[in-house]
Amino acid sequence: MINIKEDPKLNVLNHSCAHLLAQAVSHLYPHAKFWVGPVIEEGFYYDMDLGDQVISEDDLSAIEKEMKKCAKSAKRIVRQEISKEEAFERFADDPYKVDLISRMDENETVISCYTQGDFTDLCRGPHVENTKEMKYFKLLKVSGAYWKGDAKNKMLQRVYGICFETQEDLDAHLALLEEAKNRDHRKIGKEMNLFMFTDIVGRGLPMFLPDGFTVRRLLSDYIMNKEIDRGYLHVMTPSIATVDLYKRSGHWDHYKDDMFPAMELDNEAFVLRPMNCPHHMMMYRNSLHSYRDLPIRIAEIANDFRFEASGAVTGIERTRAFTQNDSHIFCTPAQIKAEFKGVVDLILDVYKDFGFKDYAFRLSLRDPEDTEKYFGNDELWEESEKMLREVLDELGLPYYEAKGEAAFYGPKLDVQVRSAIGHDVTLSTVQLDYQLPVRFELTYIDENGEKQRPVVIHRAILGSLDRFMAFLIEETKGNFPLWLAPHQIEIIPVHHEHHLAYAEEVAELFHQNGFRVHVDARNEKLGFRIREAQTKRIPVQFVVGEGEIADRSVNVRRYGQKASGTLPLEEALKQLKEEVDEKRYAQ
Amino acid sequence: MINIKEDPKLNVLNHSCAHLLAQAVSHLYPHAKFWVGPVIEEGFYYDMDLGDQVISEDDLSAIEKEMKKCAKSAKRIVRQEISKEEAFERFADDPYKVDLISRMDENETVISCYTQGDFTDLCRGPHVENTKEMKYFKLLKVSGAYWKGDAKNKMLQRVYGICFETQEDLDAHLALLEEAKNRDHRKIGKEMNLFMFTDIVGRGLPMFLPDGFTVRRLLSDYIMNKEIDRGYLHVMTPSIATVDLYKRSGHWDHYKDDMFPAMELDNEAFVLRPMNCPHHMMMYRNSLHSYRDLPIRIAEIANDFRFEASGAVTGIERTRAFTQNDSHIFCTPAQIKAEFKGVVDLILDVYKDFGFKDYAFRLSLRDPEDTEKYFGNDELWEESEKMLREVLDELGLPYYEAKGEAAFYGPKLDVQVRSAIGHDVTLSTVQLDYQLPVRFELTYIDENGEKQRPVVIHRAILGSLDRFMAFLIEETKGNFPLWLAPHQIEIIPVHHEHHLAYAEEVAELFHQNGFRVHVDARNEKLGFRIREAQTKRIPVQFVVGEGEIADRSVNVRRYGQKASGTLPLEEALKQLKEEVDEKRYAQ
Repeated sequence: MINIKEDPKLNVLNHSCAHLLAQAVSHLYPHAKFWVGPVIEEGFYYDMDLGDQVISEDDLSAIEKEMKKCAKSAKRIVRQEISKEEAFERFADDPYKVDLISRMDENETVISCYTQGDFTDLCRGPHVENTKEMKYFKLLKVSGAYWKGDAKNKMLQRVYGICFETQEDLDAHLALLEEAKNRDHRKIGKEMNLFMFTDIVGRGLPMFLPDGFTVRRLLSDYIMNKEIDRGYLHVMTPSIATVDLYKRSGHWDHYKDDMFPAMELDNEAFVLRPMNCPHHMMMYRNSLHSYRDLPIRIAEIANDFRFEASGAVTGIERTRAFTQNDSHIFCTPAQIKAEFKGVVDLILDVYKDFGFKDYAFRLSLRDPEDTEKYFGNDELWEESEKMLREVLDELGLPYYEAKGEAAFYGPKLDVQVRSAIGHDVTLSTVQLDYQLPVRFELTYIDENGEKQRPVVIHRAILGSLDRFMAFLIEETKGNFPLWLAPHQIEIIPVHHEHHLAYAEEVAELFHQNGFRVHVDARNEKLGFRIREAQTKRIPVQFVVGEGEIADRSVNVRRYGQKASGTLPLEEALKQLKEEVDEKRYAQ
Repeated sequence: MINIKEDPKLNVLNHSCAHLLAQAVSHLYPHAKFWVGPVIEEGFYYDMDLGDQVISEDDLSAIEKEMKKCAKSAKRIVRQEISKEEAFERFADDPYKVDLISRMDENETVISCYTQGDFTDLCRGPHVENTKEMKYFKLLKVSGAYWKGDAKNKMLQRVYGICFETQEDLDAHLALLEEAKNRDHRKIGKEMNLFMFTDIVGRGLPMFLPDGFTVRRLLSDYIMNKEIDRGYLHVMTPSIATVDLYKRSGHWDHYKDDMFPAMELDNEAFVLRPMNCPHHMMMYRNSLHSYRDLPIRIAEIANDFRFEASGAVTGIERTRAFTQNDSHIFCTPAQIKAEFKGVVDLILDVYKDFGFKDYAFRLSLRDPEDTEKYFGNDELWEESEKMLREVLDELGLPYYEAKGEAAFYGPKLDVQVRSAIGHDVTLSTVQLDYQLPVRFELTYIDENGEKQRPVVIHRAILGSLDRFMAFLIEETKGNFPLWLAPHQIEIIPVHHEHHLAYAEEVAELFHQNGFRVHVDARNEKLGFRIREAQTKRIPVQFVVGEGEIADRSVNVRRYGQKASGTLPLEEALKQLKEEVDEKRYAQ
């Protein structure tokens, strides 16, 4: 999705369109006073004081119409520079402008205004030349916004809009917005009863309903089994620890603001963990290790807690309680390359299963001009950055480098997956860490009986299970592939009594084969029951009546399709089992 | 295991034996001063001030020898009653006795002393007649104990012992203690690398190592799948909530002391949850319910936190972070009986899978003399207690009633399982609750379109997964049944190179069939590798050499057995799959 703020031409155009909005509002609401109207990533907005009047979504088209009129009047947009004193005088009856002027920098003695016809606004500019240049715009929504963002101040009206250079661009953007709205995981999650929130449990604390939990459990089992097959050792550690653990790891100094406050007791202080590294470091320390034991890949489906501002939480995408698909690989320096390769290979394997094809590898390196910012010496960094490049080259993977984006403790590789609506989402990450092994004094005994320091590789494949699930919902619009669908097969007997016995026999056969099956034996019309199964996004529907009983078959209809076809029972079972085993994506 | 305190004869005998201990110590440590020497469930102890001297385990046999001498001297134990003034006078140079006397009740004007030969102690009695009655005793251990249990006071020496009436009873008890020590899940858990603790993570916060997590995951999957098959809806809710949730549920008033302290923020306060009921109540409230939707069985493998005193935590049996196999059933009053029956049936089903045979049902009822203590009216209680009795009668289950043991909110049924060392452990519980539905204003719409209040049944089958695992470790001595063993099959090629290919082929076959298999291809003697597999408690070992390769078989040895037998590969696979499917217990 385009970033209006970062496109120089669209930035100016949208800024001018904010003025056009204000001009139109000044015509329709003569008592309106104007605060600020900035350009944002998504277009522009203007905050306005309309006294007791409230703008609703219904009023936006009238305002838009007036904006068109103002635009067509083809007024030149004229810049004028005045002194601060003149400005105070000219805007004397507008407390908002007076506030703005009085808070300007003392050295700023000249103030610019922009006038278009009967409307003048205080503004730094620049703007387009003429109001007629604004043809392809749309007002998007209206909301309340406290003056200066402070809940103690008056609530202003904030109207959002966007402006493009062509009708095609505008139409494409509006279609994308509509698509994003339809894909919003919060909307689909509610429709499909996947999760819920309630303020008394707490903002940003998701509660997974039965169908949502089914998907989560499948995801968690999927990645655990895949990792165990690749030699990862899954463990379980508690979601809290003493504050001392985070002092030792360094999180208490650097990450405290993102953590929930400590729970202080007489002689102990505990805190909810924001990440799992320190627990896994202590697990490594629990026993002696020989070079022969390495690599050790400790993995956990781990519950973590971070204190996000309540305004920042977004569905299950950004929460205060989340579950990480986390692992820490402890290895010798000589093993880094092979381990890194193994992780990238696992990422590719998983993305194939989920049908992700549009992604990019970003290699985050240190800024060699600013070595102070990084742990360890030049040799270490050069060597490890070289290794990571080699891995990507050997795997023939395209990647781009981001200088200065490395972590303090080592270089990292992020995988950016392009979403259906064009966002880049970082799903997976692999990070080298030379520092934690030092902080936790980790060692192994090498071939010569000497103590050596292992290296730690932090890695996440699905990332946070919650965020991954949000991503998957938006990608699939809730039409999960068969293996992940909470309800896989709905069996609908044509007559709710006559054909029930066979329907139940079919249900039992599929249940025995591991499918999540339900028989809809309600005394309702067949068409009604089929439509309802479709509405519920159930991937497979079997209709069974006289014909199917006679030749032991099922009439199969897939989600979203009108056509159906008859298959012998055993053939249907074979096909659907294959689809699940191959984790095939729904068409 | 016998409770000495509750057996009147053994109580007196052990109390006298405490005096015998003190007498012996007064001979060996002439400067010793004596605090108190009570009878406890496990025998007796005496707290003593030996100045700078410290008793070690090694000293106990010398003290025991002196006790035998005192016993054989066959002194009468004589009671004498003196006034408080006389007592102060007689014990003037013993600050401990002076402290005891000065804190006696004011109305208690007569104080009793007991004398045996050269030793006199202040004591209420009663005692046996003569020291010669104490023949079959044993000192068990010694530890430090602060005077009056206060860490600011002096550390005294506490010596523990036990006394029986016959040598047979003493021997049997000592054998049981030895057995308990060998079965201790903390010891076995360490030997088998199942879990670990470390103070910097926190006392009472278990970290499950890979093999321990494997067992936990199997247990959790086992009970989840069993419950889902019985119509339970598994969900996932966060381990924290706002304090307001617990104010509403009533836990904040009644349970706060057992909870971790709240995490206070600007406008919010969160707390770690001690139980899941409130989260599940809010989930029920999330949508409207018709009588047709009930019963609704919400279940969760839920992470909870309780603040146990650091001295009270015991391995994974009693922890500060634990995982409950929890469920709340929402039903109409008419469904209580059927739901209760369903839960008891599930309990019996699970116990059969785990081979538990020695258990008792305890029906906890209200005390009808003290109706103030209970929520709701007489009719409600009489009706529900009657229902629960009927369920047990109809199932033909023996049970005993415990009046006054009901919860505040309703009657309950606990299942007490007798452990291998004779402890009664409450594993499962079913509790009726009429109160939470009122506090959370839960409703459903009945046949007439009227709002009605549902009933809640709290139930746990495995209870806490952690405690259940501790119980299972102690029952099996770590020799888990095949389906639960973290490592199921060890494949040992006779020659580590010549027979490796076949060993790996066998491993792959069993791995493909879901077994946890490992090939020990180390260049070590065959006997050494077999012994090591036995030490690691791996239930099945396959030895493969020339003979086995020739006829595609395996030589099978079971854990703990010397004998082995050869089976064709397919037959071995079939037999072991059956053993896993039937969750058969190891012999």
